[in-house]
Amino acid sequence: GAGADNDLYINQAIVFIEDAIQYRSINHRVDSKSLWLYRWYYSRTCQWILSLTITVILALAFVEEPSSLTVTSDVRYRLPAWNPPCGLTESVELLCFLVFMVDVSVKSYLIGWKEFWKNKWLMAYILTLFVSLADWIVSLSFFCKESVRIRRILRPFFLLQNSSMMKKTLKSINSTLPEMASVLLLLAVHLALFTMFAMLLFARTKDNQQDKEWVVYFRNLPDSLTSLLVLLTTANNPDVMIPAYSKNRAYSIFFILFTVLGNLFLMNLLTAIIYNQFRGYLLKSVQSSLFRRRLGIRAAFEVLSSLKETPASAQQSCVSVGALLQVLQKAEMDSRCKQAIMRSLKMCSCDQLSAAQFQKLFEELDKDAIKQHPPSPEYQSHFMQKMQFAFGHPCFGYLGNVVALANIISICVVLVMDADKQPSERDDFFLGAINCFFILYYLLEMLLKILAMGLKRYLSYPSNRFDGLLTIILLILEVATFAVYGFPHPGWRPEFMGLLSLWDMVRLVNMLIVFRFLRIIPNMKFMALVVTTLLDLVKNLRAFAGILVVVFYAFAITGIMLFKGAVVPLGNTRGSKAEFPGSCAHISLKKKKKVLSWYSAHFQAEVVYCLLYVLSVHLICRWAKIYFVAWWLISSVIWVNLFVALLLENFIHKWDRRCQRESLSGIEYQRTVELMFRDVLEEPTEEELMEKLHQHPHLQLCR
Amino acid sequence: GAGADNDLYINQAIVFIEDAIQYRSINHRVDSKSLWLYRWYYSRTCQWILSLTITVILALAFVEEPSSLTVTSDVRYRLPAWNPPCGLTESVELLCFLVFMVDVSVKSYLIGWKEFWKNKWLMAYILTLFVSLADWIVSLSFFCKESVRIRRILRPFFLLQNSSMMKKTLKSINSTLPEMASVLLLLAVHLALFTMFAMLLFARTKDNQQDKEWVVYFRNLPDSLTSLLVLLTTANNPDVMIPAYSKNRAYSIFFILFTVLGNLFLMNLLTAIIYNQFRGYLLKSVQSSLFRRRLGIRAAFEVLSSLKETPASAQQSCVSVGALLQVLQKAEMDSRCKQAIMRSLKMCSCDQLSAAQFQKLFEELDKDAIKQHPPSPEYQSHFMQKMQFAFGHPCFGYLGNVVALANIISICVVLVMDADKQPSERDDFFLGAINCFFILYYLLEMLLKILAMGLKRYLSYPSNRFDGLLTIILLILEVATFAVYGFPHPGWRPEFMGLLSLWDMVRLVNMLIVFRFLRIIPNMKFMALVVTTLLDLVKNLRAFAGILVVVFYAFAITGIMLFKGAVVPLGNTRGSKAEFPGSCAHISLKKKKKVLSWYSAHFQAEVVYCLLYVLSVHLICRWAKIYFVAWWLISSVIWVNLFVALLLENFIHKWDRRCQRESLSGIEYQRTVELMFRDVLEEPTEEELMEKLHQHPHLQLCR
Repeated sequence: GAGADNDLYINQAIVFIEDAIQYRSINHRVDSKSLWLYRWYYSRTCQWILSLTITVILALAFVEEPSSLTVTSDVRYRLPAWNPPCGLTESVELLCFLVFMVDVSVKSYLIGWKEFWKNKWLMAYILTLFVSLADWIVSLSFFCKESVRIRRILRPFFLLQNSSMMKKTLKSINSTLPEMASVLLLLAVHLALFTMFAMLLFARTKDNQQDKEWVVYFRNLPDSLTSLLVLLTTANNPDVMIPAYSKNRAYSIFFILFTVLGNLFLMNLLTAIIYNQFRGYLLKSVQSSLFRRRLGIRAAFEVLSSLKETPASAQQSCVSVGALLQVLQKAEMDSRCKQAIMRSLKMCSCDQLSAAQFQKLFEELDKDAIKQHPPSPEYQSHFMQKMQFAFGHPCFGYLGNVVALANIISICVVLVMDADKQPSERDDFFLGAINCFFILYYLLEMLLKILAMGLKRYLSYPSNRFDGLLTIILLILEVATFAVYGFPHPGWRPEFMGLLSLWDMVRLVNMLIVFRFLRIIPNMKFMALVVTTLLDLVKNLRAFAGILVVVFYAFAITGIMLFKGAVVPLGNTRGSKAEFPGSCAHISLKKKKKVLSWYSAHFQAEVVYCLLYVLSVHLICRWAKIYFVAWWLISSVIWVNLFVALLLENFIHKWDRRCQRESLSGIEYQRTVELMFRDVLEEPTEEELMEKLHQHPHLQLCR
Repeated sequence: GAGADNDLYINQAIVFIEDAIQYRSINHRVDSKSLWLYRWYYSRTCQWILSLTITVILALAFVEEPSSLTVTSDVRYRLPAWNPPCGLTESVELLCFLVFMVDVSVKSYLIGWKEFWKNKWLMAYILTLFVSLADWIVSLSFFCKESVRIRRILRPFFLLQNSSMMKKTLKSINSTLPEMASVLLLLAVHLALFTMFAMLLFARTKDNQQDKEWVVYFRNLPDSLTSLLVLLTTANNPDVMIPAYSKNRAYSIFFILFTVLGNLFLMNLLTAIIYNQFRGYLLKSVQSSLFRRRLGIRAAFEVLSSLKETPASAQQSCVSVGALLQVLQKAEMDSRCKQAIMRSLKMCSCDQLSAAQFQKLFEELDKDAIKQHPPSPEYQSHFMQKMQFAFGHPCFGYLGNVVALANIISICVVLVMDADKQPSERDDFFLGAINCFFILYYLLEMLLKILAMGLKRYLSYPSNRFDGLLTIILLILEVATFAVYGFPHPGWRPEFMGLLSLWDMVRLVNMLIVFRFLRIIPNMKFMALVVTTLLDLVKNLRAFAGILVVVFYAFAITGIMLFKGAVVPLGNTRGSKAEFPGSCAHISLKKKKKVLSWYSAHFQAEVVYCLLYVLSVHLICRWAKIYFVAWWLISSVIWVNLFVALLLENFIHKWDRRCQRESLSGIEYQRTVELMFRDVLEEPTEEELMEKLHQHPHLQLCR
């Protein structure tokens, strides 16, 4: 009937508007049941459960068998990690798989059968789930004793497929690959030619004293290749050149040429290429988000205009205000925006809205939220007003900064004086007394500021929140210290009592004071610019960070599988050897220690540092070499360059805009990425929107 | 009289046009004698003498007292360098100073007294000369025994002041300094805060086993600062973290935070800032060059239009064709341009030229020289025509590439097989025979190509010139080898005879063959793009390279003066110590060797590598530390970032233009920097030109 139809249209409009708000695609089923399922699937609870599941399945690696959640990473000292019984982690995994299966089936159903076949991500999702389940069954049937677990390497895929941002970024990276491959090929040619040159230059001679270079670095092809590859990372930088250089200065020309060409030109060329590709990346992604938003709103308009209550005016479709109000009340959106739209809807006297008016109403969504700080309290007494003026003045803040600086300097002086003292000689009286005074000042400053500004206004500034929180923590620590160790007095010695020793307490207080000093940042103009750029960057980098986590996870799991048992604790005896599994060469204990910190540290970023060292050891087995080179290329070369490209992009945008912003200063905006680009963005035309709408696989528009 | 006036005007016009061609400023004296002096000063001979003088005075450092032009850099083996007798280098220096004095007086006279006082560079030049001369007198009065020679550090100034490009670049760098200083300040704050954190975190404990971190890296404030500064260069990357990390994994958070903030964010921020500042740098400098050219031509027009023979038409000034022809014949310019201008002047039927026509004539100067290869010879015989078709075809070139690749692979195989053989076991028969065959093929290829293309056309391609030259050298080497050692036969052993041993000859041949393989570059599209970008970059980088030379020179001389005698040959005994002059700590021999290679290598770029190592040694004296940090900041941080900025700029311009160029392919241009930007450049307006002309300090225009 017409009523059911009307209900359906209203529901469709609600979902489309929610899609527009969340920048989601509108290409999903639009019948009543599917709409209910769709709203349920994108409800906060469901999405939260999905995220939790992904976190849990990724975190499983920390407790699974070769886990390393021990305090020390040194295999000689650490206790054996807790091994969960067989079936515990596996049952958690099964639960996660079940959630993913529900997820994939709902997603597939919602986009419809036709679209499903076009969507490679969904098919890969199903395949991954299938392989994981098969591997899980194999695992259980071996009672968790099998050595290779493919499903662990596949886990990061679940993180990847859940984020549209990450998928987009990956696509973008993918399109840069051909050019990156060209530069990498160039690098390979460069490396190969120079390796041949090196082998011809530093050949074995009859005089054993003279061919140090040959013995250590250019003994055979793999050695030479490794030496030069490591030189490309500048890790073995002076060492590799010294023997040849001390034989004849002219040999340095070879190394300088290699480094200048490889490191200065080719590596930076990679930066240039990636930057060139990513120059428009942010703008493009913001532009496509804008298109999705406009499309969602337009779709809502179209379905609302086909409501039966609307008078059929053949020329121009329009929407009644009543229907829109109905939709707005049911749609989930930011309450500030909802109120603003309602208000302008009431102000507009007309009863029918055209498409343009409809779009205009929803432009409220794109607007900056102007951040208003609550007003200061108004005091009656003349004295209080004077107090308020004095302590609300910026100068009081500057005074606080000066005091904080004085505190830092005093700590620094004490540190320098105490640097070489034995722990038993140390006297914490001086520092204790000084810190006590400073913390009291901080407390006073906080209270006076609250008095002047009122609690609400005080808390509305992030710098005050940071300040206040640290002051309170410092106060608690100080009170606890005094409660346990009494007031400072000469000869206030660090003795161990309770949870932390006095010495540790004092150190903790000092560290917090150093940390609190960061409050000066907003007062320095350039620093503030840099910090806001960095914060923006962090926002824009989430997708990249996600991909990085995926890569790290896959590499860590692969590394654990490849080098399992390669590092065995052997005590302190020098010269003892451990063997890599398979066809690996011996590595001495000293070098092993470096490997060890890498091996046992899955996830930790220091892998990349150890790599450079390990590579230079070049006694390591061939597989490890390939693994490490791949790791270096992906994490260090490509990712760092991506990062530099994004930083350049963000910073240059910000810098160009700085002058404009200074003119309209005073108003504080809550800036989002979209807003940063607003004046460059192009509004999609009506034709584009309608064409896209007519291509919708499930929505049949009347006209 | 009028005749003398006319002569003066003609001469002025000649000089102005030459100024325009060379992009020189026209703000110099314009009376007859000055013009003669000006043309003499800018004549090729004079400029050549000046350049030679600068080269000589800079090169003096290689033969002066602590010179190091010895083969080996190892103080234990090298012979004492040749010490010129007192007065020899000093008299060469005096000669150079005399040339500079002539230079500065001519320059000062030519720009005139008023302008002289505004020109800080000229005053600095005079001051430098004065100080140098004073130092020279002191030096001679001490019979060359004085220890400090200030004039050596001042020498690079002569290089700097002679190049307007370098002065411009320096000004540009100077304007970036405030922002760079902000980032460096930020880096310093970052370093200071983290140092305090580190000292609080890694404090001395009672257990001596547990505080390895403290003992080695964070013993006191200077040590901690150094450790973290070196961590910023990633030179001590895994090492500094390992002791703390093996105690507790959580300590790695500190190091990761430090590295990510310092290395990834702040260092790249520096890149972003420098790139942002230099984004328009190339364009701006090309734009100002264009302005100078247009101004010179306009000035020539104005002086020619005031010739008496011109009919006095009050409204519009114009120039007679005859006068212009007279000027053109006397002006020094590229003969191709001169002919083209003459030709278009003859084609234009009018007798008088307006300002616009005059400018248009000289646009020939801005045009690309279209490079035309001479035609191939036309053969009568049918057989020869077929030959010509076959060997002139690109496929024959590809075949040559394939053969070269095969040669490279065969050398590589032999190298791998011979890698571990003793020199006495080696048999050069196989490689000798193979190379002989390949070199014959190369010779044949060259001859056939010359046959097909004719010698002139063959030589007009740079790749052919490269190819042919190497082939001829290879042939000569091969013939010489056979002449001395006979033809290859099994057991062809390397014996030393004549200048080079057989083994060295074979190695040299192989290296040349590897080098010859670079001929494939133009055949690979992306490689060709990269290589042309790099070549363009080298052109644009000349000014930067010059400044780098200046900085290197100053640092090297300062280093020599500071650390003179710090490295003393002590034989092979281990553990022997050498002392730095002044208040320096001991450095052990092993570490000294690193310093040594730096110390004795003035000018060589590897200083920067050694620096990193030496810094990590941190037992070195305080002065050396400051010296090295300054060196690192300037040469590594700032210069590398400048380089990256320029590379990005160049590459992105090139990349954007690639698509355009591909459309009008076939024509090969001799591209200059100016041409790269031609479609972006703005022509200066008539008003701007005339305003500038009226500001000329010496030229009085009639109207």
